[in-house]
Amino acid sequence: MPTVRARATAGPHQPFEPATIDRREPGPRDVVIDIAYAGICHSDIHHAHNDYGKTRFPLVPGHEIAGTVAGVGADVTAFAVGDRAGVGCMIESCGRCDHCRAGRQQFCVEGYTPTAAGVDRAGRITQGGYSRSIVVDETFVLRIPDALPLRNAAPLLCAGITLYSPLRHWQAGPGKRIALLGFGGLGHIGVQLSSALGAHTTVLDLSLDKRDDGLRLGADDYVATTNDSLFTDLASSFDLILCTVPVNLDLDRYLGLLAANGTWVNIGVPEKPFTISPFTLLRNRRSMAASLIGGVTETQEMLDFCAEHGIGAEVEVIDGDRIDEAYERVLRGDVRYRFVLDATTL
Amino acid sequence: MPTVRARATAGPHQPFEPATIDRREPGPRDVVIDIAYAGICHSDIHHAHNDYGKTRFPLVPGHEIAGTVAGVGADVTAFAVGDRAGVGCMIESCGRCDHCRAGRQQFCVEGYTPTAAGVDRAGRITQGGYSRSIVVDETFVLRIPDALPLRNAAPLLCAGITLYSPLRHWQAGPGKRIALLGFGGLGHIGVQLSSALGAHTTVLDLSLDKRDDGLRLGADDYVATTNDSLFTDLASSFDLILCTVPVNLDLDRYLGLLAANGTWVNIGVPEKPFTISPFTLLRNRRSMAASLIGGVTETQEMLDFCAEHGIGAEVEVIDGDRIDEAYERVLRGDVRYRFVLDATTL
Repeated sequence: MPTVRARATAGPHQPFEPATIDRREPGPRDVVIDIAYAGICHSDIHHAHNDYGKTRFPLVPGHEIAGTVAGVGADVTAFAVGDRAGVGCMIESCGRCDHCRAGRQQFCVEGYTPTAAGVDRAGRITQGGYSRSIVVDETFVLRIPDALPLRNAAPLLCAGITLYSPLRHWQAGPGKRIALLGFGGLGHIGVQLSSALGAHTTVLDLSLDKRDDGLRLGADDYVATTNDSLFTDLASSFDLILCTVPVNLDLDRYLGLLAANGTWVNIGVPEKPFTISPFTLLRNRRSMAASLIGGVTETQEMLDFCAEHGIGAEVEVIDGDRIDEAYERVLRGDVRYRFVLDATTL
Repeated sequence: MPTVRARATAGPHQPFEPATIDRREPGPRDVVIDIAYAGICHSDIHHAHNDYGKTRFPLVPGHEIAGTVAGVGADVTAFAVGDRAGVGCMIESCGRCDHCRAGRQQFCVEGYTPTAAGVDRAGRITQGGYSRSIVVDETFVLRIPDALPLRNAAPLLCAGITLYSPLRHWQAGPGKRIALLGFGGLGHIGVQLSSALGAHTTVLDLSLDKRDDGLRLGADDYVATTNDSLFTDLASSFDLILCTVPVNLDLDRYLGLLAANGTWVNIGVPEKPFTISPFTLLRNRRSMAASLIGGVTETQEMLDFCAEHGIGAEVEVIDGDRIDEAYERVLRGDVRYRFVLDATTL
């Protein structure tokens, strides 16, 4: 059983330390990936801090993985050694339910197996991308186009598909007015995608501090949510608002920004339930929805779209000794816009 | 100024009494309608009881009006004396905003003028269909096809469009699985519409008491919501659920019935805000929306569709002396399925 170097945390708020983990012997459908970069997603921190109460320790997080194929099983047809490859949030699903057959593995009725902090079908705890290599069934391996630098591609595997899927589902495109609430790891990719899809794109963020970046990445407008006049000036203005911030907002106020038949999509998951007045939804026939990553086929489509349009995460690369520091900086919003771990330093 | 007989209530929970009201002199764009029938809608009762705190008394309710044209202004082109005609919830809007120009007068930015219990653009309190005649701008007058008996058509002007608009907007049709929650004045029309549109149609009601009627009107299934196994047996089953009951439900439980990309549409307006878990929406990418009547053009389309498919409200006709009794019976759910006031008895 191959043993690989990794960084693991032994318990909530414990520092990351060098560790070794076992990867399974590659089966006939498996792809072995030498990991080059692993993005640091806010949900890694939730798992590491056991915010959901379900983390098994020691934990090796990481579900935004980009690297190179180092080996393939006998039945693998889509990948060869040396190919650029990625892995996102999922590494398994039942493969038989309506969702899986329709390419919506994220809604698998049996549940998909998360790349890290989960338990796979064989009962093994899954260990993610903060490691030197990973073994994954080819169904869940993505091709990373040559045009995408691996370091910028890694965060696309979670943050990218998380924005791309709702933008496509709710038909972002020419003539549509899209707002992204929050301009961080998710929002800065959403702006690029929305703009490339041809939609009129507005950023709504707490301040104007990152306005220049927003405009450079394709935003048509950039508005501070601390500016109260926003809620009258832009009332009934947007066809789609993607809320990337995981906090409980005054939804009646924010959904008032939706035009006729507009949809508010929660991508961030706040702590408390959503509460909203019936009248807010009645006016303009508004909808409130949520979206969860995307399917494998759609993730590949997203990567190809990003390659075609020169879209990637803006990243700060760190080595293995700086994970704890990176977590602290993510929590205080001090990153432009995604930390990426250089896995060769592990 | 024409004076017409009506029934009015002097204040909350006061009985309806014979009264006379003034109608305006018909202008060049006005249509005078001799009212044959006026449906009794639950919202009439809310206005009569001043549940919204805004009712001006004396009140003449009624916004489900069917009758015959008795006069037309010089500029009216779409109607002639003797035509069958109807009026629904709206009698005016600004006519200039994006909504009005798109035929969504129900979302007029200045607000539409309700047929009863509102104030029109000239500052007059609007008096509705519990009267012998009404004068309405032709823009807001509907043609009632010959195939529709007036008594069965009257409730379509509110209840019918309230169901038709969301069914069309969310694309009810062959291959779609639709549920109607509640089988009363709204639900029994919704079943007919959904079935005629070709969707697989399920009624979810408190009991099976009205099951035979549901199946006769086109339902494929009829399930009691008191049967707890419903929530597992039919989990993730429906593409669209129209909630016609105006009560606060356990939305996490009910929205669990929605399939991938499914939508829950609130038509009834409960007393308290909606509360729902983020995870309920995340799973299956569910949406929660609400819908408010429909535009004038869509209302005409609905009437034509009903005529083509033999759809109408099942009604119990009452005379003017039985309004109070009818209200009491509506409040205890004792009507199959809509009271219609015979306006010739006023």
